[in-house]
Amino acid sequence: MYKLNLETCFSPALYEPERHVGSIVVVIDILRATSAICTAFEHGVETIIPVSTVDEAREYKNKGFLVAAERDGYVLDFADFGNSPFNFTPEKVEGKTIVYSTTNGTGIISLAASADSILIGSFLNISAVVRRIRTQNKNVVLFCSGWKNRFNLEDTLCAGAMAQMLLSGRAYTTSCDSTHAAIDLWSLASSDLIGYVEKVGQRSRLRDKGLDDCIPFCLGMDFTARVPFYRDGSLVSAEVL
Amino acid sequence: MYKLNLETCFSPALYEPERHVGSIVVVIDILRATSAICTAFEHGVETIIPVSTVDEAREYKNKGFLVAAERDGYVLDFADFGNSPFNFTPEKVEGKTIVYSTTNGTGIISLAASADSILIGSFLNISAVVRRIRTQNKNVVLFCSGWKNRFNLEDTLCAGAMAQMLLSGRAYTTSCDSTHAAIDLWSLASSDLIGYVEKVGQRSRLRDKGLDDCIPFCLGMDFTARVPFYRDGSLVSAEVL
Repeated sequence: MYKLNLETCFSPALYEPERHVGSIVVVIDILRATSAICTAFEHGVETIIPVSTVDEAREYKNKGFLVAAERDGYVLDFADFGNSPFNFTPEKVEGKTIVYSTTNGTGIISLAASADSILIGSFLNISAVVRRIRTQNKNVVLFCSGWKNRFNLEDTLCAGAMAQMLLSGRAYTTSCDSTHAAIDLWSLASSDLIGYVEKVGQRSRLRDKGLDDCIPFCLGMDFTARVPFYRDGSLVSAEVL
Repeated sequence: MYKLNLETCFSPALYEPERHVGSIVVVIDILRATSAICTAFEHGVETIIPVSTVDEAREYKNKGFLVAAERDGYVLDFADFGNSPFNFTPEKVEGKTIVYSTTNGTGIISLAASADSILIGSFLNISAVVRRIRTQNKNVVLFCSGWKNRFNLEDTLCAGAMAQMLLSGRAYTTSCDSTHAAIDLWSLASSDLIGYVEKVGQRSRLRDKGLDDCIPFCLGMDFTARVPFYRDGSLVSAEVL
């Protein structure tokens, strides 16, 4: 039986757009961009417009949009929200359009533009992402955002969990060392994920800034069945049951 | 107590030369370049001249040098040796100078030129590399060659084993996610390394070409106490007891 191909990419610096034309790309940046985006859609946001630069975000703010923008964990002075999922409460976001600029996540979306589709993944919507992928019949790349182009553990663990779920069905196979590594790290970490993440670099960086309160939430599975996806310059979402 | 810093880099595409000025860089490409180089020095080779391009290798051949050169596992037609450590027997190499060009390994040496020193590491000389590092009192980067700029498992496992040995002493610490991942993968693989490496991409690539006979040898620890290092455009070696 012909099987579809599953790969994992550990950093934007390792992404090869020409190899992934026509694939589904799942963007993963769990501390905190993609967790925040999933939370925002669960709480009723209508559309998220991702932008790469601070200047673009400021221009949107000047036009009256709600803006979420941070760099290195800090909320930019003109922005309405930072990058914590706890900011995106139903009261603030329901029915709204939000412009979103982050350190890693939004730049990656443009890097993946040659793909068939771009989904936003995190632990918070992991089962829904897997269900969505299974309806599409395409090769898949799990694209970890990393940190400043470096490998990071937390996105790798989420990719490993997702890969294990996808490979447990019959449709997908992998011959990708990164995917094997991600699955093996997930198998080591999954019985005590919060404990394992103690050693992760981003854990200390967020703690040093007092921004680590959301970590246990970001490591929880299936908070939402909504899968955000990219369409014509914006993120929208669908519930995938 | 001030501790020295240990980092791991998973691919040439992730290497940041400006961050590693003054560090010791250990180049790791165990299937098969750095294993072959360690074997050659154990068997008495005097000097290895690493070159990046096929044209350079051919020019040296025309000048009468012994040349080891392969691309994608295949020996180039003008070369005396391929990339298997089994080629570098004492009868062929003792007292000789060899010009060496490989798919990954030699390009990496030039990438790491800003370092304080460049060592050649593999499982075959792992304890000697660790002893050598301990005499130098510098930050360390374990530089995995990867495969065509991608992450690979076998170099990661070797880096993990080396990192675990270095961190078991008091001199080094790490806050690098790649190092944590490498150590954890090594801890999973170490009890049955040959079995674990069955799933590695390079394992299949070498098997498909009938070049996998050297894999168990390349996974063996401490075949030699020689540590090859880069000096003035060439690799030479020292015994580190």
